[in-house]
Amino acid sequence: MKHLPIPHVSLIAIIEVVAILVGALSGFVEARRKRMDIVGVFTVAFIAAFGGGTLRDILLDKRPLFWVQHQEYAILIFVLALLATPLMKTVRQIISERVIVVADAIGLGLFAVAGVAQAQTAHMPIFIASMMGVITGIFGGVLRDIVCNEVPMVFRDGKPYAICAFFGAWLYIGLQYTDVSDDFALWTSAAFITILRLVTWKFDLHIHYHKNP
Amino acid sequence: MKHLPIPHVSLIAIIEVVAILVGALSGFVEARRKRMDIVGVFTVAFIAAFGGGTLRDILLDKRPLFWVQHQEYAILIFVLALLATPLMKTVRQIISERVIVVADAIGLGLFAVAGVAQAQTAHMPIFIASMMGVITGIFGGVLRDIVCNEVPMVFRDGKPYAICAFFGAWLYIGLQYTDVSDDFALWTSAAFITILRLVTWKFDLHIHYHKNP
Amino acid sequence: MKHLPIPHVSLIAIIEVVAILVGALSGFVEARRKRMDIVGVFTVAFIAAFGGGTLRDILLDKRPLFWVQHQEYAILIFVLALLATPLMKTVRQIISERVIVVADAIGLGLFAVAGVAQAQTAHMPIFIASMMGVITGIFGGVLRDIVCNEVPMVFRDGKPYAICAFFGAWLYIGLQYTDVSDDFALWTSAAFITILRLVTWKFDLHIHYHKNP
Repeated sequence: MKHLPIPHVSLIAIIEVVAILVGALSGFVEARRKRMDIVGVFTVAFIAAFGGGTLRDILLDKRPLFWVQHQEYAILIFVLALLATPLMKTVRQIISERVIVVADAIGLGLFAVAGVAQAQTAHMPIFIASMMGVITGIFGGVLRDIVCNEVPMVFRDGKPYAICAFFGAWLYIGLQYTDVSDDFALWTSAAFITILRLVTWKFDLHIHYHKNP
Repeated sequence: MKHLPIPHVSLIAIIEVVAILVGALSGFVEARRKRMDIVGVFTVAFIAAFGGGTLRDILLDKRPLFWVQHQEYAILIFVLALLATPLMKTVRQIISERVIVVADAIGLGLFAVAGVAQAQTAHMPIFIASMMGVITGIFGGVLRDIVCNEVPMVFRDGKPYAICAFFGAWLYIGLQYTDVSDDFALWTSAAFITILRLVTWKFDLHIHYHKNP
Repeated sequence: MKHLPIPHVSLIAIIEVVAILVGALSGFVEARRKRMDIVGVFTVAFIAAFGGGTLRDILLDKRPLFWVQHQEYAILIFVLALLATPLMKTVRQIISERVIVVADAIGLGLFAVAGVAQAQTAHMPIFIASMMGVITGIFGGVLRDIVCNEVPMVFRDGKPYAICAFFGAWLYIGLQYTDVSDDFALWTSAAFITILRLVTWKFDLHIHYHKNP
């Protein structure tokens, strides 16, 4: 059970690109809803895609930033922003909401767990590391909504999005105290977040917070 | 007068906890007013409590951040966020507005002067150091209001809040040119800010800015 | 053509002060429209003047920040904020919108090209360097609008402001592959941005983005 084969690096690269594209797509949609111009559409998409990881790296004082090392992602979002108006209609026709939610859930799992791992590499205490995982997963959307002059969706819709990332972060931290390999812990926790997110989405679960149980 | 006994370290720790709790409380209140869920309540409370010091440390490039070194404060706010709904009613019954204002004024004094001292340790020029003190004191509330999609209260209510911190920062800087001890300068300036804030609150003083006198 | 005389250093200093003042002025106007008090007026003006460069330096992890090294600029904005109410009326009478637009366009050119140069000094890849130039030129205004609880103007008015900075950034990058001197490349690109901005302003050009051509 310990030395599971690690998926080939190009699988990670594909997941990464898909997750970034889904983040950017959420930015395109929000920016266009606000009738933004091309500059706004690109910037908001960029912030939605990279904002969480960038905030985490600034808090950890880690450089270079992910998108600085991989300028091809910035260029990709730039090209997509130029094409966003005609593209959006096609994307909506081809790709159903279901596909977007699944891709987003995969991205949430991957980035949250990666955020925890990076925080631990930077010797953060574990509760802070779990917070850094959640920040990586959700602050792209938070910053997107702030720039678009909205109360961040993830803070008010009561859907367990950040909470899935939080539980998965702690699963990853917990698995480190067992004798499973770090790769296994990482992939299991990411998959756990993705599945938890999809299950709560499927059954439209909400956390009722304001009414006392 | 010069070698005043320094208050015991646990007094500072108590003031610190109280000031952080008051900051977090302002976040709880604002987040709930916006009907945020548990994720929003925790995040906004956290930002309100630590946003000012975090922004200062990012500007100064100082790491690790305060709340990273003391994860017990993050855990405390996390637990309080879980309890906030039932707690809020009790807090309101037990603790009057007066108590909150006093605690907040103590926190403002302490954090503003500490902010100046840290900026000076990082060799900032004095005007910038005074600004860093004010930023430490007020930007928790500013970032809280931005995340809650409001024009920051401290920028528009005309009450001398930042201004108290600013005068106290300069008192602290000024006292460094006399032969009083640094401890005395620090405590005197913090107390000055607290008292000035309470006096202006008591008499409901406003700075009339838009009408020329 | 290669060894053009570099304008005297005090010319740069004058342009710098004027560009900062114009940035601050945009903050004064916006803060007063929001009925902010003196604290808000100073802070928003400061953010409008220095926000773009500060964000760039945080992303590049470059310290000390420009305004920390030159506290005289912070003091200048502070004094102007104290005088802003009586000053504003006079400024409006003396200085026409035309003058402000010209000064702003000069500032945009200068700061965008300087932003590219600084990013290249920090070994950023070229697309990222061009983005850093645009960020330097526009994010003062973006952060100003976010603090004032508005959707950033530069993201929604369809006027080619960021786009002028972007083209000028690439002109500067392109000229580095020719045998012109770096000074010539820098001044030509800055002038190009300024002129492009003024031409598009003069003819009131807009980028129509939402309607397909």
